[in-house]
Amino acid sequence: MGNLVLFIGNKNYSSWSLRPWLALEACGIPFQEVVIPFDFPAGNPRFREISPTGRVPVLHHGDVRVWESLAIIEYAAELFPEAGLWPDDREDRARARSYSMEMLSGFRALRNACPMNIRRPRKAIALADGVMADVARIEQIWQEAIARSGGPFLFGRFTAADAMFAPVVNRFEVYELITDPATLRYMDAVKAHPAFRKWQEAALAEPWIVPEDEA
Amino acid sequence: MGNLVLFIGNKNYSSWSLRPWLALEACGIPFQEVVIPFDFPAGNPRFREISPTGRVPVLHHGDVRVWESLAIIEYAAELFPEAGLWPDDREDRARARSYSMEMLSGFRALRNACPMNIRRPRKAIALADGVMADVARIEQIWQEAIARSGGPFLFGRFTAADAMFAPVVNRFEVYELITDPATLRYMDAVKAHPAFRKWQEAALAEPWIVPEDEA
Ligand SMILES: N[C@@H](CCC(=O)N[C@@H](CS)C(=O)NCC(=O)O)C(=O)O
Ligand SMILES: N[C@@H](CCC(=O)N[C@@H](CS)C(=O)NCC(=O)O)C(=O)O
Repeated sequence: MGNLVLFIGNKNYSSWSLRPWLALEACGIPFQEVVIPFDFPAGNPRFREISPTGRVPVLHHGDVRVWESLAIIEYAAELFPEAGLWPDDREDRARARSYSMEMLSGFRALRNACPMNIRRPRKAIALADGVMADVARIEQIWQEAIARSGGPFLFGRFTAADAMFAPVVNRFEVYELITDPATLRYMDAVKAHPAFRKWQEAALAEPWIVPEDEA
Repeated sequence: MGNLVLFIGNKNYSSWSLRPWLALEACGIPFQEVVIPFDFPAGNPRFREISPTGRVPVLHHGDVRVWESLAIIEYAAELFPEAGLWPDDREDRARARSYSMEMLSGFRALRNACPMNIRRPRKAIALADGVMADVARIEQIWQEAIARSGGPFLFGRFTAADAMFAPVVNRFEVYELITDPATLRYMDAVKAHPAFRKWQEAALAEPWIVPEDEA
């Protein structure tokens, strides 16, 4: 069926790129990656060449173009049903999508105040209104899912829902937003996953600094 | 399998409620609706009783709860594969999801400046920054999809992608944002759909005024 080619931004900063990359990598779906560094001063002209929205991530599969992080995951889930990107149980799958879409559509206060930044030294910042409400809802989601599944991941094994929240694990850590042991335990599980570590190592090796994302 | 019960907000204003309602109704999926009017002064306490996020829409199916408009559509698509909520062709389905997720995650300038308001008399307003860029991208999506499918809807027959953009059809109309005949033609097709008209009639019959949404 031809190669899947996933175009992504800087691994240190591009939270939306991390999501499908991690889902595919963790579930063993073969793909080729192409990193295109941000070029905010020039308005990311290379993104506009490869992506209908001018944003990353975008997947090329032959002539097919799929953009939006979660649409890429759905496409891969259709191509590789045996990879288990979504939970096997129908109710779990519905919950996984509800949580994932909360992430896709919301948590703006947290996303704006605390950009993902893999190499950032841990340090708290003064928080804008609404950030702690976002943090509280995300902790509730994680703890509720793990209470149902038994963990270590949201639906037991690692699924797309964990991938959708993975950039938040970084934010919670580097901006020191969490004290609850149950939340910290889930964060440790994500950080110890080989696919997350692989992304992290590549991010740490990147040379680029994006001032916009240095909060 | 038990009844699907879809809880929605005011039909005049609740754009996120319209999306799954219209998708299910237009594709002939049986469900029961429960309208719960907004109560912004009290913080929508009834929404908090029925919905994990305190927002509508939310679907109850026996003990199962599905929230987020597009997750409700995905759940219904799994339960009723023969209803054709998504296009049949895999590439079309991927594009339909990419477009739908652009809608779910974006177009904030348009959404903030121009709330859906079915009964609003047509009248232009002074537009905030970014609104016309959102309008332009949505027109591009619609015209590109119809150029591929031949219309009248984005993927030929009415699918979930049309439902995701239906509240924008109202916005484009009542705030007088469109002059392009091709865009107006698509808007006419949506407005003429029996399911859209059914929602519209019910909206016009509602007694409630929500000052926040009267732009
Ligand atoms: N909702 C989109 C968001 C994509 C997005 O905002 N990507 C950022 C990078 S993380 C981007 O490409 N920004 C560059 C730009 O807008 O020029 C998704 O889920 O894929
Ligand atoms: N991303 C959500 C958005 C849901 C949403 O914002 N719903 C609004 C009504 S259109 C709501 O319930 N607002 C009431 C509140 O926040 O108290 C979805 O797609 O369902």
